[in-house]
This record gives sequence, structure tokens and C-alpha cells, in this order.
Amino acid sequence: MTTLANLTDHYTPEARAQAETELFGLLRIPSVSADPAHAGDMAHAAEFLRAKLAALGFSARTDETAGHPVVYAEHLKAPGAPTVLIYGHYDVQPEAPLDKWETPPFEPTVRGGRVYARGATDDKGQAYAHIRGVELLLSQGADSSKTLPLNVKFLLEGEEEVGSANLEPYIRQHQEMLKADAIIISDGSRFAPDVPTVTYGLRGLSYVEVHVTGANRDLHSGSYGGAAPNAINMLANIISRLKDDQGRVTIPGFYDGVEDLTETERGMWAGLPHDDAAFAASIGATALPGEAGYSTLERLWARPTLDVNGIWGGYQGEGSKTVIAGTAGAKISMRLVPGQDPERITRLIQAYVPTIAPEGAQVEVKALHGGQPVLIDLENPYVQAAGRALEHVHGKPPKFTRGGGSIPIVSAFRELLHAPVVLLDFGLNEDAPHSPNESFALSDYHNGVLTSARMLQEIAAGREA
Amino acid sequence: MTTLANLTDHYTPEARAQAETELFGLLRIPSVSADPAHAGDMAHAAEFLRAKLAALGFSARTDETAGHPVVYAEHLKAPGAPTVLIYGHYDVQPEAPLDKWETPPFEPTVRGGRVYARGATDDKGQAYAHIRGVELLLSQGADSSKTLPLNVKFLLEGEEEVGSANLEPYIRQHQEMLKADAIIISDGSRFAPDVPTVTYGLRGLSYVEVHVTGANRDLHSGSYGGAAPNAINMLANIISRLKDDQGRVTIPGFYDGVEDLTETERGMWAGLPHDDAAFAASIGATALPGEAGYSTLERLWARPTLDVNGIWGGYQGEGSKTVIAGTAGAKISMRLVPGQDPERITRLIQAYVPTIAPEGAQVEVKALHGGQPVLIDLENPYVQAAGRALEHVHGKPPKFTRGGGSIPIVSAFRELLHAPVVLLDFGLNEDAPHSPNESFALSDYHNGVLTSARMLQEIAAGREA
Repeated sequence: MTTLANLTDHYTPEARAQAETELFGLLRIPSVSADPAHAGDMAHAAEFLRAKLAALGFSARTDETAGHPVVYAEHLKAPGAPTVLIYGHYDVQPEAPLDKWETPPFEPTVRGGRVYARGATDDKGQAYAHIRGVELLLSQGADSSKTLPLNVKFLLEGEEEVGSANLEPYIRQHQEMLKADAIIISDGSRFAPDVPTVTYGLRGLSYVEVHVTGANRDLHSGSYGGAAPNAINMLANIISRLKDDQGRVTIPGFYDGVEDLTETERGMWAGLPHDDAAFAASIGATALPGEAGYSTLERLWARPTLDVNGIWGGYQGEGSKTVIAGTAGAKISMRLVPGQDPERITRLIQAYVPTIAPEGAQVEVKALHGGQPVLIDLENPYVQAAGRALEHVHGKPPKFTRGGGSIPIVSAFRELLHAPVVLLDFGLNEDAPHSPNESFALSDYHNGVLTSARMLQEIAAGREA
Repeated sequence: MTTLANLTDHYTPEARAQAETELFGLLRIPSVSADPAHAGDMAHAAEFLRAKLAALGFSARTDETAGHPVVYAEHLKAPGAPTVLIYGHYDVQPEAPLDKWETPPFEPTVRGGRVYARGATDDKGQAYAHIRGVELLLSQGADSSKTLPLNVKFLLEGEEEVGSANLEPYIRQHQEMLKADAIIISDGSRFAPDVPTVTYGLRGLSYVEVHVTGANRDLHSGSYGGAAPNAINMLANIISRLKDDQGRVTIPGFYDGVEDLTETERGMWAGLPHDDAAFAASIGATALPGEAGYSTLERLWARPTLDVNGIWGGYQGEGSKTVIAGTAGAKISMRLVPGQDPERITRLIQAYVPTIAPEGAQVEVKALHGGQPVLIDLENPYVQAAGRALEHVHGKPPKFTRGGGSIPIVSAFRELLHAPVVLLDFGLNEDAPHSPNESFALSDYHNGVLTSARMLQEIAAGREA
């Protein structure tokens, strides 16, 4: 029953069409976790997934949390066979700026073989590929008993885009239920089109909000200009002092414990098909500024960063308003690498900002959320099984790379469930996750379905061998 | 007929109540010139003033311009007597931020002897004080012939808050009609409560908008952080480089031609009742940062400045969105002093910003508007007449100060009408013009009415003497 049949032949045009229709239904639900106004849509998306998994023969439920619900489903009908836990998230980033979207963010539209919608790749599309992968595998059953060659659990949360604050407590409360031999996550981007990839590292995150107050109100710049502290000018000064002219973060202790790259990694990455000019052109950039002394890939995967994610203050409307802003604010996040603890980094920036604030600046640094960086052992059998599945589907061996993003919950899985994590990304950066016109190539979606099914077979077979 | 009767006795409680009711009616009209959505309200406010002046016996009209209408009215029934032109504006600043208003900005509300409303002091209240001043003077006529001891013209525009772009062409087209011996303007703030003031200097203005582009879209800070140019970080760097740590503007040539203060002025201002601590406390500031080597009043009245008036970029909503902003923008204005030409300063900053922009920043500096700085000869007889009127109403001689704000059109009046300008301010900075909860003390309003009437008598008498 778990012979490694060629699944591709069994993934019929009908099944592909149905897999697309179902995904589009999920993409139509505006499940924006950051916006309280979408609470109802969050519940709707959770129920959508629960019902689908139940229909596949899973014992499925939605569990309330202090935030948005968690969808949990299990299919445990292969005694003695390995158990995998597949994680994904059904929440999406806010759609802003809406006017930059060519088609409505929650109206999935197919153009040039890609489906355009918020969440298409991050993470509805990639998570749903596993659901359809399991469905494909079920259709391989020797009989109609809807059996699988291994035990599968799904854990789909609704708060990944806002820091997964309630998932770690959930995992803590359900450690026995969630127990697994491996945890599969497809929530990132692989290296390039035509390059199947297994990711073995992720950056962590520290995200804060800085508020600067100069005066108790906006002031007339004629009457007060020259004496009143300007909150925007002061905020700009603070931001400009957070990095030096070499692109290094100036926060004392920021780089303590950061591990150097191994020569193996440097060599492995130097061999990857990457071209700075093409990379810059793909985002319309005239340069790729960053920390001196490192290649672009090294800066993206193995070096910490600091970026302002949003800024506001004073008059943003039409025309010219001559005010001195009384207050201004900015969202600032730092991507972290192994050796950096998010809570420590957050404390460091909270202590540092007041020391670089200009005279007259009343500052507050609020911690929003954080996530641990991750490094995975390339030798573990589940990573290897994922690699073999990719080779089967793509006809070539995968590359092993790191990702620049964060999946805060990965470290919680490793600490609480003591199971190896497999990061198997189907999407691409060019899918524009978090950006207007986010999309997902339908070919990547279907390859994801096939890879998921094949990987589950490999894992089942690998254990029996 | 033009004996200097004591007007105060004739300014009855009934007349005061009526003067308030009429002003509140004008304040209820949301005449925000910067917002195209308020075009209808602009026309409504113009007609309100035209009708009032017509009712006073003026030949009054509203003239269309490329922008908002100009109200012109004349009362020329005193052959041989001097002619004064009274300027004001009926447009107001946008009300944003609306949530900071204790009562609705366009619902005049009296609290503690002050009327709270957008435009209360800037400039509806101060302009209307002259209209009621003329009305008071008319009520002094020996007969019921509605005569005045001099000739009066009113010019009330609707674009002062957006740069008066269409008023200079209007003046140019109507130079003969607008001809006058003096031009009276009440559109600023006097020095302090209990300190009657004549203003003899104003700062000019150069207002630009800076746009920075780093990439063609917002990018995922995980996938791109460390390599992609961040528009917000780059904009913050540009802003921080516009001033040095001594608070001096770094734009090459910015200070060329700036005149030093005379010892007389320094002495005159040093003698004014000003306290830095009280000034800082009045705006909730912990410091009064600014250009080193100058007192606060010197920095406010006689030194140029640079302030960011608004900034935007990236995600400004709830929660944490991990994007690298593709674009960011800021509104930046510079207050100018005698010796600085606005157009030259605008060209200087347009040339300078690209030279301080970080690698990867695609910058654009758009000129929004400007205004010439002004210095007035204290010896001219109309300034002296205003001073005597203030002394009559307040029972003490006025102080002579400068203002930090700009009235761009003043220089056009001087160049095109070749007449001396009198800056007679009834309002105060604490009225919070351009800020939430703008207000105007009713006592200042009524003193304005009396001062205006008395000044017109003084001018008429002065000429006959």
C-alpha cells in the first residue's frame, strides 16, 4: 500500500481543477489577524479548514484561544507508522496599500498561470497544498478505506502574522495530543524558480514601536519654529543613529553571540545561481545597501538587520500645512540570527533609544513581538525524505539554503515537542508575500501537492525500511 | 464728525452680542481651502462676507479666481480723506487631527470666555473684528447717512492657508481698484496677553515635499531585510542631515544674505516679558532646542528654521507588519528671514537633498509654495496711528515685535500697491492657530473691534491735522 507509486499520474486534471477551486474559496475570506474588524472572517476561515479536513476523514476541530481560533485535525489510522505534524496558518497580512493592487486582494484572480490574492502564497496556498497532498495520498489507498501509510496531524493557527502569541500556550497545553516524529512547515520562500529547496535556517525577530513626543499638541511652525521640539525631526534623528555608515546596527551588544558563517555554507551559497543586478532589478532598486563585508545572500540569511516598517507624524494630507508635529511614531523591527535572543535584543533597543534621543524628545519604546532564530540539522531523516520527494517531483536534487524570514513558533515546536522541523517551501519571494499583488504560481501549488504526498510516502517507507 | 469720541461707551452689550453671533455663523462654515471637497463651503463663506459688507453700505462683490473666490468691498464716500485697504482671509487650516478636538472644529463653542473653532483666531475672528470695527464707526456717524471719516476697502481671500497663489495675479489685475494709502492686516499673533503689540517683521517661507523610493513595492522584511533599500530609513537619514548638531541648517548658501539683529532690537526684545520655562511648559515641552547662540525670541523672529511638517511611509495600522517600505515621503518647510529669497532657498534644497541621499535612494523634491520675509519701518504714520489706537483701548503703549510666521502676500502688497503695511494682531499663540482646539478670546475679539474703529479715526484725524 505504501509502494512509491508515481503520484503524478494520479493527480488528474479534475483533481487539479478542484484543488484550485477550493483554494480560491479560502482566499476569498479576508482573514486579516491584525485587524479586530476581521474577527468574524477569522472564524469563517478556521471553520472552512476544519470542515475540509473532517471531510477527508480527519477528526477535526477548532479550538478557541485568547486570540483567534486554532484548527486541529488528526488522522491516526496507521498504528506503528510514523506520525507527522503539519503546521500552517490561515491568517494573512493586512492588504494595505489597497490602491497598489491590480485586482482586489480578496478576489482571487488568475493571470499568467498565477493566482493573485492576499495569502495566496503566505500561507493559505502552501498550507492547502499539504491538505490536497494528503487527499491525493488518500486517493492512492488500495481500498476505499481512506487509509494513509502514516499518521498525520494538522495544526493551523490564525495569528502567525501578529506573532503567534497564543499558539505556544496552546502547544504547551496539548503536548501529548500534538506529539509527532517530525513537524512539517511550508511557510516561506524557496530560493528561485526551477530550484527545489529545503530550508535549514530562519532568522528571528524583535519588533518594537517607537513613540516620540515633543509638545502636547501640533504647533504653528511660524509661531514656534526655531524653539519648539519637532517630534518628526527628532524621530528621524533617532532612526538615523540606529545604524552606522557601514550598515551596522549601533545598539551596544547587538552582535554579541552572533555566529560566523562556516566556510562550507559560504561555499554552498556562493555556488547558488544569484545575480545582484538581477535581484536589484526585480524590486526596482538602484542599489542593494547593507552591512559591509558580506555578500547579499549572507546579509539576507545569516546577518541581523534593522528596518523601519512604518512611520507617521504631522500632516499627511493634501497641500501644505505648516505645523510642527507634537508626536510621531515608527514601527521598527530587527531580524535576528542564531546567537541572538529576541527578548534580550528588545531590552537592548529599549535601553538604547533614550540614550540617542535628542534633547526635548520624550520617547517610549513598546515591544510588539519577537521570534527565535532557527538552525536545522541537515542530516535528520525527515529533511532527507523531503529532499527525495523534491527530487522525485522536480527531477533534480534540491539545494539547501537558509531563509531570511521568521517563523516565531518553530522554536516552540522544537522545545515543547522535541521533534525535528522540516522547512519545505513551495513559494517564491517573487510571489510578493506581505506586498500588494501577492500571488502563487499554480504550478508551484500543484508541485507542492505532489511533493507533500510524496514526502509522506517517503517518510512512511523510510521508517519501514 | 471725526472727533475722537470714546468708542468704548458706544460699543454696547447688544452690539457685542451681535458681533459674537455673526462671527459664530462664519465659523460654522468649514472653509478648508486645502481640501477640494470643501469648494462649496468656500463659496458659502465668501458670500457670507460679501452680503455682510453690502449690508454696511459697501459696494461689495465676490470675484472668481483660478482657485477660491476673492471678496472685495469698498466704501468710498470721504473725498480727500485717506484710503485704507483691510486684508484678511476666510479660508482655514484643515481640522486634522480631528480626535484631538474637545468640541467639533466647526461648531463654535464658548468656554471660559473663549470661542473654540477652526479659524476662530486665524483669520476669521481677526478679520471680522475689522468689519465690526467699521460697523461701530458707522454707528458714530453724526447723521444716519452711514458715513465714514475715511475711505475703506476690504480684500478677503480664500487661499492664504495654501499659499495665496491666485491673489498676486488678482492684485496685479486690479492695482487701480485696490490703490490705498495703507494696508491693514490682522492675521498673526501678538506677543502676550495684556501686551498690546504692533508687528514690524514677518518670516518668509519655503515649503517642499520630499519623496523617496527604494523599491517598486513594499517588500517582506524577512525575505529582503539586509539587502533592499528601505525608503523610510533613507528618508530619516536625509532629514537628519538637513541640520547639524548646533541646530544650523546644513544646506550650502542657506544663510547667505541673512541680516544680523541690530543691538536696538536685541535690547528691545530682551526687555520683553518672556520666560523660557513658562514658554516650554505652555506647550508641554521638556526643552526648547534650536540654533545655538540665539535667544528663544531671536530664534523665533529673526532666524531661519527648518521643520518637517509631516511624514509617512510603510505600515501605520494596528499591530506589526513586517514590510520594508518601497516609498516614503515628508513635507518640509523653512521659515525665512530678510535677506533670504524663497525661490532661491527652494532651489538650494532641491539641489542639496540628492547630494545627501543614501545610496539606493531615488529622491524627488517638489516645491509646494513660498513667501517673502518682511520688515516694516516703525516710523510710518499708519503704524503710529495703530499704536495710538492700541494705547487708547488698552490704556498702555504697545510693544513693537516681529512675528515668526509668514503672510506671503504682504510683499506683493508692498511691491504692487506701493503702500505701507500695518500688522495689527489681536490674537495670541495660545489661541493655537493651526492646532486642534483653536480658539479666540472674546475680549481680544471685542478689543479688536474697538482698536480697528479707533485706528481708522486716528488715520482720518492724523491726515486732517
